[in-house]
Amino acid sequence: MATNLDADTLTSEVLKSFSETPNGRLQQILESLTTHLHAFVQDITPSIEEWEQAIDFLTRTGNTCTDVRQEFILLSDVLGVSMLLETINGQETPDATDSTVLGPFHMVESPTRDLGDDISPESDGPRCIVSGRIVSVEGTPVPNASIDIWQADTKGFYDVQQPGIQSVGNGRALLRSDAEGRFHFRSVVPMYYPIPTDGPVGELLEATKRHPYRPAHIHFLVTAPGYRELTTHIFIGGSDYIDSDAVFAVKGSLVKDFDEDQDPEAAAHYGVQSPFRHGHFDIVLHPET
Amino acid sequence: MATNLDADTLTSEVLKSFSETPNGRLQQILESLTTHLHAFVQDITPSIEEWEQAIDFLTRTGNTCTDVRQEFILLSDVLGVSMLLETINGQETPDATDSTVLGPFHMVESPTRDLGDDISPESDGPRCIVSGRIVSVEGTPVPNASIDIWQADTKGFYDVQQPGIQSVGNGRALLRSDAEGRFHFRSVVPMYYPIPTDGPVGELLEATKRHPYRPAHIHFLVTAPGYRELTTHIFIGGSDYIDSDAVFAVKGSLVKDFDEDQDPEAAAHYGVQSPFRHGHFDIVLHPET
Repeated sequence: MATNLDADTLTSEVLKSFSETPNGRLQQILESLTTHLHAFVQDITPSIEEWEQAIDFLTRTGNTCTDVRQEFILLSDVLGVSMLLETINGQETPDATDSTVLGPFHMVESPTRDLGDDISPESDGPRCIVSGRIVSVEGTPVPNASIDIWQADTKGFYDVQQPGIQSVGNGRALLRSDAEGRFHFRSVVPMYYPIPTDGPVGELLEATKRHPYRPAHIHFLVTAPGYRELTTHIFIGGSDYIDSDAVFAVKGSLVKDFDEDQDPEAAAHYGVQSPFRHGHFDIVLHPET
Repeated sequence: MATNLDADTLTSEVLKSFSETPNGRLQQILESLTTHLHAFVQDITPSIEEWEQAIDFLTRTGNTCTDVRQEFILLSDVLGVSMLLETINGQETPDATDSTVLGPFHMVESPTRDLGDDISPESDGPRCIVSGRIVSVEGTPVPNASIDIWQADTKGFYDVQQPGIQSVGNGRALLRSDAEGRFHFRSVVPMYYPIPTDGPVGELLEATKRHPYRPAHIHFLVTAPGYRELTTHIFIGGSDYIDSDAVFAVKGSLVKDFDEDQDPEAAAHYGVQSPFRHGHFDIVLHPET
């Protein structure tokens, strides 16, 4: 290494240090990371104190992570990185259902449930019905698809946020589509909710006067052999914050109205009180390439 | 927020979300961070699995930090970011002594010692002498400057790396320059050493076939009223790895030979065995602007 490196030659030296990396993809990632990270540092010329604050922020973000909380995913979410990733990776599948962010709450295994089950048995509030079909881009049904579902309750809380109040698994289900690709389940209409604000990401939102709310939604992660995995939400039409999601994850195609169904026969069919709210969400999978 | 954001409009939305930030400098930093971070993501188009690996790497880096270990500073060091920061911030002071990285071991308070004291009383090996003067860019002495010193021992270990073997404070000192700006202390000549490799940063070095070694050096952090704080090292001339420092921190002006002094009177003056090795390091401070 040359001594007395200036800023540009220093960046070159760091890039050169990765030249013996056996894994070519890792080398590409580290070279790009170094280039952009050094450009960021050159752009803002942080003082030593600002750099120390950044180190402290990252350290506390790491320390805030637990088995049931992922503050780095939350940081990725509020900086739009998670959604950017989903957008880039989804670009090749325009005919399939839009993807959106995984979010920080997919941390525990969802309980296996049967089609039609109540997936929020511990949650207060009237039952709604969510139904739909899993189909391929050609419109053929996808039977036996694995549908992982997780959602907040009517007060905006996930199970893992309320130990002692909700059991882990409330608001979650692992379903299988039927022979025609259909699924349906009973639940409660979730409420909009704030992302966790008692950690470093909350400090960031507070310091930038951003609100922490996400519009009401239900998460879906759908997998089936021969198809691309799909991570998405159904957003409840008319929810507060639908136009200013704290994590930039709303796509118009994913917003579905949960209209009131006043037909007593439909209520009897689904095993809910009449009238009930009903959301319908057909999910189109792209074949694996 | 518009729905159906593509990658470019998404970045604009995230930038816009910071527009109400009361602190203008914070807004500038977050806008630059978002721009460069999104450009990095667009550049490499990470898969979801790669993004999950990155989240896991950052989380484990945070979890590796303790009261006496700072893995994020180590990461900043091996990516050349710490040195870039020092280089940029030092650009305005060409007449002053070059700065270099703080490193991850400045975590405990150095014990106050007197000029001439042995700062490594628990370390094996023959004593050396380090001496020098603190002066201003005009050459006037800076008396009563605070000189914070920390170093590894002859086997390459810092006190905080060997609890139960070294007491905290061994290899460290807080000295004051005398009325003529002079300082000197007894110690051992430190050895080159590997940065800690048992954490995520070690995995990174292993995966990129980089060695973890830093050439032998002694850290200095000098402060005096009316002068800019200086963070630097004296590198021991002829040390292994002087041309391939794992953290890119060597500057030619900071490499000093520790020649053998065979004068018995000098040894008696300093209170060491004859012959002894002697490093001399004059430190030039820039006035505060």
